[in-house]
Amino acid sequence: MIHPSYDINADGHLTFAGADTVLLAKKYGTPLYLIDENEIVRRCRIYRSAMKKYFSEESAVYYASKALSIKEIYRIIEKEDVNADVVSLGELCTAISAGYTPSRLCLHGNNKTDEEISAALRYGVGSFVVECTDELYAISSIASEMGKVARVLLRITPNIDCHTLEAISTGKLDSKFGVPIETGQAEDFVKLALSLPSLDLIGYHCHCGSQVFEIEPYLDQLDIMMRFASDMKKKLGYSPKYLNIGGGFGVRYTDEDSVEVNIESNIKLLSEKLSLLCAELSIERPHILMEPGRSIVASAGATIYTVGSVKKIGDFRTYVTVDGGMTDNPRYALYKSRYEAIIANKASLEKDTVCSVAGRCCESGDLIGEDMPLQSAERGDILAITVTGAYNYSMASNYNRVPRPALVVIKDGSDRVAVKRETIEYMLENDV
Amino acid sequence: MIHPSYDINADGHLTFAGADTVLLAKKYGTPLYLIDENEIVRRCRIYRSAMKKYFSEESAVYYASKALSIKEIYRIIEKEDVNADVVSLGELCTAISAGYTPSRLCLHGNNKTDEEISAALRYGVGSFVVECTDELYAISSIASEMGKVARVLLRITPNIDCHTLEAISTGKLDSKFGVPIETGQAEDFVKLALSLPSLDLIGYHCHCGSQVFEIEPYLDQLDIMMRFASDMKKKLGYSPKYLNIGGGFGVRYTDEDSVEVNIESNIKLLSEKLSLLCAELSIERPHILMEPGRSIVASAGATIYTVGSVKKIGDFRTYVTVDGGMTDNPRYALYKSRYEAIIANKASLEKDTVCSVAGRCCESGDLIGEDMPLQSAERGDILAITVTGAYNYSMASNYNRVPRPALVVIKDGSDRVAVKRETIEYMLENDV
Repeated sequence: MIHPSYDINADGHLTFAGADTVLLAKKYGTPLYLIDENEIVRRCRIYRSAMKKYFSEESAVYYASKALSIKEIYRIIEKEDVNADVVSLGELCTAISAGYTPSRLCLHGNNKTDEEISAALRYGVGSFVVECTDELYAISSIASEMGKVARVLLRITPNIDCHTLEAISTGKLDSKFGVPIETGQAEDFVKLALSLPSLDLIGYHCHCGSQVFEIEPYLDQLDIMMRFASDMKKKLGYSPKYLNIGGGFGVRYTDEDSVEVNIESNIKLLSEKLSLLCAELSIERPHILMEPGRSIVASAGATIYTVGSVKKIGDFRTYVTVDGGMTDNPRYALYKSRYEAIIANKASLEKDTVCSVAGRCCESGDLIGEDMPLQSAERGDILAITVTGAYNYSMASNYNRVPRPALVVIKDGSDRVAVKRETIEYMLENDV
Repeated sequence: MIHPSYDINADGHLTFAGADTVLLAKKYGTPLYLIDENEIVRRCRIYRSAMKKYFSEESAVYYASKALSIKEIYRIIEKEDVNADVVSLGELCTAISAGYTPSRLCLHGNNKTDEEISAALRYGVGSFVVECTDELYAISSIASEMGKVARVLLRITPNIDCHTLEAISTGKLDSKFGVPIETGQAEDFVKLALSLPSLDLIGYHCHCGSQVFEIEPYLDQLDIMMRFASDMKKKLGYSPKYLNIGGGFGVRYTDEDSVEVNIESNIKLLSEKLSLLCAELSIERPHILMEPGRSIVASAGATIYTVGSVKKIGDFRTYVTVDGGMTDNPRYALYKSRYEAIIANKASLEKDTVCSVAGRCCESGDLIGEDMPLQSAERGDILAITVTGAYNYSMASNYNRVPRPALVVIKDGSDRVAVKRETIEYMLENDV
């Protein structure tokens, strides 16, 4: 098994976080999202302790909510001293309604509406990551009107091509995110932030992309950002208190993915590089912020389905159809993301077939994966997909008017509902 | 303008179905889905009258609900004597809760759960399209238990490559849908349907794919299906009363798409081909069923957004960011589908820029389109995307915890809410 949450019990059933997944399917129905609380805690602690040790006491982890924004997640991470970035009023209100401390939040996102900016100031979020000059003017003006000061970090594009997937590569010059250095626009951005009222410029933000397994793009990005900071110090006399270096390290979805990233040693390398740069450039060492999202929750999740049919097309392909699909996990449809599958009630048997796992939507592209090794399946079997904690529930839809599944959190083998299954009445509530 | 619903009024504003889109944005907020009722009616009538004229009085249009399944759509189409296919209990209940006649419904979908089969029988749906033998056994057994007879059509794979997009090409041999002829499996499928209890085999179903502009794949499919029917008549003595030839014809999204399909003349060609085939094969002429979804509602829809920022990256690209995106329209993220954009409050001005229209999600792939001709935009402008009636609301998500927009139906310039805007309280209702 690819991550530590999985095992096989005496009945030959797949267990997840110590719970029998076949019994969970019976108890809650399928499809069903499962989350292993201990795995989330374990991942939070790896980041939190390494960052304190190698960066500084004031360094901080900002959990990237978009990976999985539900009330329960904020309760879990706050206990681990982990902050959160939110990208919409919806995420902001989810955190706050869970009792999460507003000053731990950072309002992110490439298009903040006026309503979101004023709500964030009213609730007292800790900071804003600002995407462009239009937004900077809006934040300054709304903060002024409200008699508040907004603490801001400016999102700068380092122009790094980190060879990840196009859809999640965000650090390139040609990106909808941030303001580029090499066109001179980032410098103007800093000047503007220093000149507008009701803003407290606390630092810079950058993010080279998602699912990056190598350390080099992070080191390059640090180099570019610290040289930019040094340049701004010389030109404008401004040094950043914080530098947010963006998202977390790559997560293994299948055995074909690169080896497990050693987060602690990567953070150590980044810290050493930072020290060298600060010495070379004679600039104060900023506190480092990081924004792991997927890297915190992906491996802590699994999804279980019921098999509806097994269809052999002649001798050359077998489709195993499940009662979910792109509605609860659109990542294969969007990015051809690869997963591993296992028949939970036959987990101790050999994977002696190769199947395409199809979803229940009326769309050929609705697949969980193609050519996946699998135990021989039949209608009624429970099929598990691993590593679905990130960007599954958060991206789910009601396409084909399929209700979104329940989400159950498991801790030490005992389970509790964190998100209730949608009912048809719920889906129809807004229809006139 | 690409379709008849659009115009420009004396204020230089874009109108849709006779209503000023800038005023609609003010009245309802953005993002906002708009639907032109008269355009839906017009498209229904084209199919309905041509099919009655060229096929038979008992031929029928089955609106493919997955394109847009909301209560209001069923009220509109039932008045036009249009039936509907539904692919889930959710779509089924949406239709029925709108007062739609259950016997007009056909339960479709490649993975019907036991719960859905028994609900469909209980509500009295008119027919089932059956995907595979597993499902046939399930329907027979549930109908027997309930003392009912299920009217079934068998989904057969014609093995046609209609050169549409992979994700929506459904008629190929290697498909999760249907049962193939050439492997001999379709024959066994018919035998099984004739032998199992509580089933009334009323015909066959096939579907070569979506967004097909040419008539040839439909003619080829008809040829293959009628030869299969003739073969089964000889071998098993069974002739189909109905033949469902699947989805509607291609819809133009931009000027680059093929010319507008002449639906009536296509139906005439299909009818002539059918007559020739029936004469050649000495087989009774079946009543033809068709399942247009996109072809009924796509052109009847538009989406309006508010521009949040305009970001020029040096001299080579401009991003115009709107307050929606892949959450309300994931078709560019999924398929790179092309749309046309217009600044609604500057509709009479020339499109003198070329922009990428970016959504508000924290994801580089969240774009409505790249390199789109557009009027010069600024924060606060209203931006309209045309031809969004199909697979927009129905595929929408709450990614980034963004609420789904309201949907407003316009008829002769007067507007009414058909789906209310989601609130944050609504989104949080299932969170524990």
